[in-house]
Amino acid sequence: MNIENRYERGLAKLREIDGAAGQRVLDSLEDIAPDFARYLIEFPFGDVYSRPGLDLKSREIAVVAALTALGNAASQLKVHIQGALNVGVSRTELVEIIMQMAVYAGFPAALNGLAAAKEVFAQEREPDSVLSHTA
Amino acid sequence: MNIENRYERGLAKLREIDGAAGQRVLDSLEDIAPDFARYLIEFPFGDVYSRPGLDLKSREIAVVAALTALGNAASQLKVHIQGALNVGVSRTELVEIIMQMAVYAGFPAALNGLAAAKEVFAQEREPDSVLSHTA
Amino acid sequence: MNIENRYERGLAKLREIDGAAGQRVLDSLEDIAPDFARYLIEFPFGDVYSRPGLDLKSREIAVVAALTALGNAASQLKVHIQGALNVGVSRTELVEIIMQMAVYAGFPAALNGLAAAKEVFAQEREPDSVLSHTA
Amino acid sequence: MNIENRYERGLAKLREIDGAAGQRVLDSLEDIAPDFARYLIEFPFGDVYSRPGLDLKSREIAVVAALTALGNAASQLKVHIQGALNVGVSRTELVEIIMQMAVYAGFPAALNGLAAAKEVFAQEREPDSVLSHTA
Amino acid sequence: MNIENRYERGLAKLREIDGAAGQRVLDSLEDIAPDFARYLIEFPFGDVYSRPGLDLKSREIAVVAALTALGNAASQLKVHIQGALNVGVSRTELVEIIMQMAVYAGFPAALNGLAAAKEVFAQEREPDSVLSHTA
Amino acid sequence: MNIENRYERGLAKLREIDGAAGQRVLDSLEDIAPDFARYLIEFPFGDVYSRPGLDLKSREIAVVAALTALGNAASQLKVHIQGALNVGVSRTELVEIIMQMAVYAGFPAALNGLAAAKEVFAQEREPDSVLSHTA
Repeated sequence: MNIENRYERGLAKLREIDGAAGQRVLDSLEDIAPDFARYLIEFPFGDVYSRPGLDLKSREIAVVAALTALGNAASQLKVHIQGALNVGVSRTELVEIIMQMAVYAGFPAALNGLAAAKEVFAQEREPDSVLSHTA
Repeated sequence: MNIENRYERGLAKLREIDGAAGQRVLDSLEDIAPDFARYLIEFPFGDVYSRPGLDLKSREIAVVAALTALGNAASQLKVHIQGALNVGVSRTELVEIIMQMAVYAGFPAALNGLAAAKEVFAQEREPDSVLSHTA
Repeated sequence: MNIENRYERGLAKLREIDGAAGQRVLDSLEDIAPDFARYLIEFPFGDVYSRPGLDLKSREIAVVAALTALGNAASQLKVHIQGALNVGVSRTELVEIIMQMAVYAGFPAALNGLAAAKEVFAQEREPDSVLSHTA
Repeated sequence: MNIENRYERGLAKLREIDGAAGQRVLDSLEDIAPDFARYLIEFPFGDVYSRPGLDLKSREIAVVAALTALGNAASQLKVHIQGALNVGVSRTELVEIIMQMAVYAGFPAALNGLAAAKEVFAQEREPDSVLSHTA
Repeated sequence: MNIENRYERGLAKLREIDGAAGQRVLDSLEDIAPDFARYLIEFPFGDVYSRPGLDLKSREIAVVAALTALGNAASQLKVHIQGALNVGVSRTELVEIIMQMAVYAGFPAALNGLAAAKEVFAQEREPDSVLSHTA
Repeated sequence: MNIENRYERGLAKLREIDGAAGQRVLDSLEDIAPDFARYLIEFPFGDVYSRPGLDLKSREIAVVAALTALGNAASQLKVHIQGALNVGVSRTELVEIIMQMAVYAGFPAALNGLAAAKEVFAQEREPDSVLSHTA
């Protein structure tokens, strides 16, 4: 395994999970910290997300839970709510995960997480899919 | 649905997930805040964990991720690492979830989470089950 | 006591404390997580705020202090600054509580809390009441 | 007003609120950061706690709520639970404040706060006063 | 040493570090908590920043690191990124400090810190100075 | 550059900064998450700490500030207080950094940081070096 492969594997994983939003994060780093864009691809996505022992759906459940609980990274939470949808977590499951965080990080954290989910759901292409997902 | 059912449903769910550790938490509240023991049974377990839209395994993945990331509830994290094992999350999956938190809450949070997992795994009855679980 | 009473007692308490802002929070949940609106009414307001052992004024002092210190729920802090005013905490007392949080959570947390208070005070109907309250 | 007065006023206030525990904190700083002991007396106690606009009981309610919610200062939380008792907050009120934090910072924060309260209550001189206070 | 000197020393230090942004913070407090503006000058700047044992450049490195890691005070982080530039921390060094926080507080905290830095760098008068600073 | 070099460079840097304590962290991971030990060497130390744009002394100032402010990683804070000493930060400077965190994360965070420093200073081999360092 060499560094080029780590980068390429990470970039493919980032695109699989975060899609266009992941690319926007990378672009935003280009003029201020291009090496950090590389680290972001290599360590979280090339190393961690590419590991076999846990499926991507479970990984996104973990991230949405953690970012909802921490409550200080609204933008990244939205990227990962979309990422969770991209890898097969349903809207209903996302709402359940975020609601559950009321127990571990308080109601305000859960309310802010639900507001983030609402925004992401509304931006998705087919708005009528809301009904089928949350029904 | 009445309050008695909410309580009974919560108590059954608490026992299913947390086993003896859940009972110890309830016992510790008896002389200082017995009503809080009741709320703990009713709201997190009777209301939230009993909801259909997300399986218990995913719920425990969410909790272990959140408590590892928050990093200020070591005792509850250990209870839920055991709880996750109880509902079918493997040791390998738990280690993956906690390692992944390095990305979202930093390496110290992940290191402390791994230390908690190590302690829980060591306290389990059959220490040689480690091999079969992590294989 | 049955579930319906818990809900009704909570809704009355929510309206007593948060007024129109509480209703807006409930409304915002209607299309994404209506059950969470119910939990919000039942557990925090129906169970906790309705307990006898601590007066509402003290409860709101506790919440404003906690949300200022946590620093990651600006919207809920503003709702509770208004809630505190609604149950008899004066503007002067609110400013004192928030200033005091500089000691326990740092000056940035207190500065952000004061900015939230300033915004809430400015939105109240009688702006000239500021003078009489803080004098 | 001069610096000496600020120091003396703060030291008197610290002793009024925290008693022997406050002195132990000051003593612990003597060999590593004696100036910090002075700042602790002067700013929190000489400046903030000595202000008129909020009574000491409300100030201690605010601190216990904030430290319970933050969840990363168990030692200081215990000092202030005792401090709250010293200035007239009852055991029942303390338990209510801490329980309420489950709503704003999650159940683990409240459980850890209750454990701290239990420890402080047990260390008080008259253990049978628990019954009369919490009854 | 008397209180007037503490205030004057703090005001001079605040201006040296934060410049116009520091004054804006003080102005924003004038109508809601003028005493807090005084405390802000006296304790952080008159007492702490004026101490000899650590140079101002190191103090600003410490603040930018801490506020990036805490992640709940975006406005103050921006003031101190500018403050760090004012006392001689280079843009390259600031980017390094913030990137390093990914290790201790996670990638979202670092990404938000880099976004804050980008905003501050863009608002500086001579945009072409970016090249000379980061070269 | 290949992966082997990243690992070796990181291991050398970890040893330079953390010494024996770094090795103990790696050892503690051997049976539960050996890959995480490798990531810890490769990303924080092989990638971040090895970058040219910021000297090691400034990097340790940043870490001690951040971990003091976050307040939920006492063990790692102690490792980095020792690490800071190892790369040339003086005891006086460390005490100043930690005291300054009272401004940004509150007095309890600073008090806990000072307690950690006190413990590290006491464990150093030559206790009489305290005088020469803090003089």
